[in-house]
This record gives sequence, structure tokens and C-alpha cells, in this order.
Amino acid sequence: MRDFQAMTDFTIEELQLAARNHGLPLEALRYPITPVGLHFVLTHYDIPAVAPQDWRLQLGGRVARELTLSLEDLRARPSIRRPVTLECAGNGRARLSPRPLSQPWLEEAVGTAEWGGTPLRSLLEEAGIGESAVDVLFTGLDRGLEEGVEQQYERSLPLEEALRDDVLLAYEMNGEPLPPQHGFPLRLLVPGWYGMTSVKWLQRITVLDQPFDGFQQRDRYRLRQEEDEAGPPVTRIQPRALMSPPGIPDFLSRMRTLDLVPTVLEGRAWSGWAPIAGVEVSTDGGGSWQPAELGGQAATWSWTSWRYPWEPEAPGTYELACRARDEAGNEQPVEPPWNLGGYSNNAVQRVTVVVRST
Amino acid sequence: MRDFQAMTDFTIEELQLAARNHGLPLEALRYPITPVGLHFVLTHYDIPAVAPQDWRLQLGGRVARELTLSLEDLRARPSIRRPVTLECAGNGRARLSPRPLSQPWLEEAVGTAEWGGTPLRSLLEEAGIGESAVDVLFTGLDRGLEEGVEQQYERSLPLEEALRDDVLLAYEMNGEPLPPQHGFPLRLLVPGWYGMTSVKWLQRITVLDQPFDGFQQRDRYRLRQEEDEAGPPVTRIQPRALMSPPGIPDFLSRMRTLDLVPTVLEGRAWSGWAPIAGVEVSTDGGGSWQPAELGGQAATWSWTSWRYPWEPEAPGTYELACRARDEAGNEQPVEPPWNLGGYSNNAVQRVTVVVRST
Repeated sequence: MRDFQAMTDFTIEELQLAARNHGLPLEALRYPITPVGLHFVLTHYDIPAVAPQDWRLQLGGRVARELTLSLEDLRARPSIRRPVTLECAGNGRARLSPRPLSQPWLEEAVGTAEWGGTPLRSLLEEAGIGESAVDVLFTGLDRGLEEGVEQQYERSLPLEEALRDDVLLAYEMNGEPLPPQHGFPLRLLVPGWYGMTSVKWLQRITVLDQPFDGFQQRDRYRLRQEEDEAGPPVTRIQPRALMSPPGIPDFLSRMRTLDLVPTVLEGRAWSGWAPIAGVEVSTDGGGSWQPAELGGQAATWSWTSWRYPWEPEAPGTYELACRARDEAGNEQPVEPPWNLGGYSNNAVQRVTVVVRST
Repeated sequence: MRDFQAMTDFTIEELQLAARNHGLPLEALRYPITPVGLHFVLTHYDIPAVAPQDWRLQLGGRVARELTLSLEDLRARPSIRRPVTLECAGNGRARLSPRPLSQPWLEEAVGTAEWGGTPLRSLLEEAGIGESAVDVLFTGLDRGLEEGVEQQYERSLPLEEALRDDVLLAYEMNGEPLPPQHGFPLRLLVPGWYGMTSVKWLQRITVLDQPFDGFQQRDRYRLRQEEDEAGPPVTRIQPRALMSPPGIPDFLSRMRTLDLVPTVLEGRAWSGWAPIAGVEVSTDGGGSWQPAELGGQAATWSWTSWRYPWEPEAPGTYELACRARDEAGNEQPVEPPWNLGGYSNNAVQRVTVVVRST
């Protein structure tokens, strides 16, 4: 059973999670590559302590030969580095009503790092994928309880996704060894998919001859309206545009104040389904929309910048909004799409600003 | 006027702050030097965008000669590097009842970084401190509104504190340039004092011939019981011990589960008044206390580690607690000390664990 909560009162459990985990402060959308410490972090249990010299990655299951690799072994393999936008599947959850109780993200659970590592595919091929293989399970070192079920965090990928050229075993973030909170010494990195897929603190990869049916695959990360339905799995990132809130904030309310001068609204947009086709901006609460100028993507699964010059006509309160659509035809909804787990709410961001005369 | 809130319902304003700012996940107490991204961060307004080549530090006011320094100028000066424990003055605020509305820290607003920079004192001496000087004002680049007052964040230090040998103009954290959220390119670092003193994104230092009376000095960071009293200023860090919660967590409640085996309770303790004299641990909710073993401090204003071997006698629920006292005779209270701003609540941490048979 899950618990729900009305919009205005967040619980101590939600606060405990919000104090541990953190989002991207939206002004940090200015950085094409998010600095460490500004990229969102969601840790399901505790950050494990790993002694890198003792750590090994095990690869087994339906393979011709099992592999055991040290960090040095992995670093000696072919390496690639690419900017990838990661977003938490629970981003937007705190905007839902009723609100599923879990990490209460508003819209800040995103970041784009330059991830470096070795392709998973060549490692799987070296192990020799069995003919019966259908799924690949990734097990992390982080242990905890959820609804009474003790577990290490683990999730699987269908074999064809695991064999994509751009799926990485990452040991670097922004040119440095992974920070503890991002999975040191090794994590999976699946570009285009929500963050829960990119298992951190990897301990074991297991090739399976049937789809994995564990807690994080069956009980979590499903788009359910009712508890008794299976629901489709959460997979790729839905399109979203975010704006760096313009002007200056009030400390407590975060409400923005802006001078009556020409300004430029800007931000980033991304989708895990296809490149961003367009971003539109509204300065009248969604009454009318104008196209923003796109800056282009640094890589296939990296966000794109956008900008929209705006000249407020008069002092007053304005509700700004932005929305993205991708080349696969997905676009952001105006109303939050609701589900029991509070996943994948990519409803349009709204930013209220008070424009004052100068 | 301030707003208050009952313990069980946190507001959207508090959540917005908690999603932007973040604490030290308590398992990260294991690191003697906190990795970037795990150290607490409190940004009053927005993180400013600074182009380091255009940035200059201005030093003026009651001095014989004004100075303008580039980042290269500062880096060319004598440098020192030292581990310093910083804590937010609002740490513990979310445990108060009624609860002042602001950043709702539980107890995680702490971290110990190795800060590198140049001593403030020699710079002040080079500028020539005027005879009438009493206070030194530090102005950051971060702008915002608080209770309708538009401001750049600024706070002062009494001259004698500013002239302490260990007060730094810091341009490095853990051997790297400051991350944006910790004050890039330059911040003040005042060991022993709560974090609001160590002004980030420094733009200007002004030597004053009277005590600074601005918003962050007069309206904030005062220990008031009533709105109309001045109240003593918040200055040095009160003693606190924190424990890494043992065992494994439940995802949502963060409640801990522990096996019935010998375990070691451990954590860190610090005070801004004097070295830590002792840490005591209770495993019966504060009914009895036993001394923990201290690990020693890496530097005067850096935390000390502590450990306490514990063998739970039987399965069941235990309330663990730890408390520190310093060599100046300050010790942690059992009940939260209340004030209007919710500052400096160093009441004893309590951690509930369920011990299960193995």
C-alpha cells in the first residue's frame, strides 16, 4: 500500500528524503555540463562505502564464460566519453494531487554530465551471450528495505537495449572518477532512459533467460492507475523544457522580481525518445505560445539550449511557461499525467514573475 | 513578520528550499574530508554566474589605500590549505516546534572541506587599516529580496575576528577551484563560525568605522524570543555530535534495521568554541550514557571522529543518541533551544533502530 498526501502539507518522511537528495538549482541550467554537486542525486538507500582496490565487477548468468573485472581492467578497455542528460523518473511528483509519498521532486531532478567509461556491449560480447538470453540484470551494492522487502537495488534492461552502442559502464563524471553519490567506482549509464535504469555502485551483471521480475521492476517504476494492474514500465525520458527563472528571487517564497527592461528567457529542453523539435514559450500563463530559438544538442541524448527574447509591456504579474516537443511527436501536457507511483510527470513548468517599473 | 508551522506539515516554500539546498547524507560522515556534492549547501538567493577573467575583488572603506585584485593576484599571494568544519546556523530548525519557516534542516547541514586560499589579514594590512576601523563588511554577488528588502548578501565581522590568522579568502575546495555553489571564484572562510559568516561569491570588502547594521546582521542571525528585542548575534558553532545511522534504511521512512551482532556506532563531533572534550553515546534513549572513543582532530576547526562498540542484547527497538561537549564547557542540550529564527539548535540527535535476530 502507498500513502498519499494533499499538496500543501509535506510529511517528515518526504522532508528527510529532500534533505538527503537534491535537484539542480534551476539557475544552473546555464551550464551546458552540470558541475558536480549541482547535478540531481537520488540515493534509494545509503551511499555504499567501496574500497576500489577490493572491488570487482562480476558478469555471469547465461554467458559462455563468466568475467571478473577490476577497475583497472575496465579502465584498460576502449573508452568513450559523452554528455548525457539524466532525469529522475519521479521528477514532477510533488506537483501531483493527491501526491504519492516518495522523494518529492518539483521539477529540478535533472542534470547533464559528461560520462566516461567503456561500452557494455563489447564486455557482453566477450563473455559470449547465451542463445536463450532476453534480459540483462544490473545489481548495485546499495542495500535497504522497501515495503518490508530487503534488497540490493537492481534493475534490468531488455537485451536489445543493453546491446546499444551508447550504453556505458561509466567510471568518470566530468573527467573525474565518479563521486561517491553518483556510483563510485562504476555505474551503468543508459542514455535516453530515466535515471533508475542507470544502476549505481555496480556489483554484478547477470544475463537472464527470462525477464527480471524483482521489486524495482515489478512493484516500482510502473505507470499504474490501480494497485492491482501491472501497468506499462517506465522507460525513456518524456520531453521537458525548463526555464532558468529570470530576475531575482525572494529568499523564502522563491518568487521572482524582474525590472521592466528587455530580457531573455532561456533554459534547456530534452527528450529520451528523439531530438527536440521545438520549444514554445508563453508569457501569459499558457494563453498564447511563441517559438523559442533552439541552440542545438551537443550529443544525441544531451539537452538542447533554448532562448526567447521578451520585452514585458507593463509592470505587473506574469505567468511564464515553456513546453517542448520532440521529433517523435511527444509533447509536454498542460495537466500533470497522474499515476500511483508519481512517475514521469512532465507537465509544463510555470514561473510567476513580478515585473516592476524601473 | 515570520510564519511558523507545526511539525507534521511542511510547506511548499520549505520544500522548494529543501529541493535546491542540500545536506550531508549522514552515511557520508565516514569521509574525513567531505567530497564535493556531499558537503551541505545553502544558497540564499541564486548562484551567481561569474566570468573569472572579468571578476575583481575590491577592498576599500577605512583603509590607507584601496585595492583591486584579480583571481591571479590572489593566487600569487601566500597560500594555506586547511580542513574546516562548516555548519549552517539553521541546522536543526526543522526539529523545532513551532517551526520558523525557512530552510528546514533536520541535522545534516554540515561538512568538512579542505579549503585553500590566502589569509585575509595580510591583505588588510597591505591596504592599511584605518585607526577608526571596528568592523569589516563582506559583500557577495548574490542578489535577492527578503521581507521586501532588495539586497546583495552581506555580513560583517568584528575587526579582531577578521584579523585572526586562520581567516581565509578561499579559492579552492578539496584542491580544486571552488564549485559554483560554494562561492566561485572566491569566498570568505571563517573557521569556527556558522556558515552565514563565510560570505560566498565575494565582490567587496569594506572596512567600517562602526558596526554594520544591514539586514543579515540586524534582522537575521539573532537569537530572539520576541520580534522587538535585538537578541545576541549568532556567531560560533555550538557543539554537536552526529552518528552515521547504523544498519540499512527503509527507503521511505529512513528507519534503520540492524542485525543482532556486535556493531560499531560511529560519527563525528565538532564545536566552534573549543576542541571536543568528549562524546557520549546512549543506546536506551538517553537513559544512560557511555563515553565514546575520540579519534582526534585533523586541525583546530575540523571535526573529530568518534566510535562506540555496541552489542545489542536482544532483538527489539532501540533509540540511539550521541552528545558532545567541548573544552570550553559547552554541551549539547537534550531539549531543542528555541528562538524565532530557528538558529543553532544543537539538541541531541536520536536514531531509532530495529535490531532483528540473525
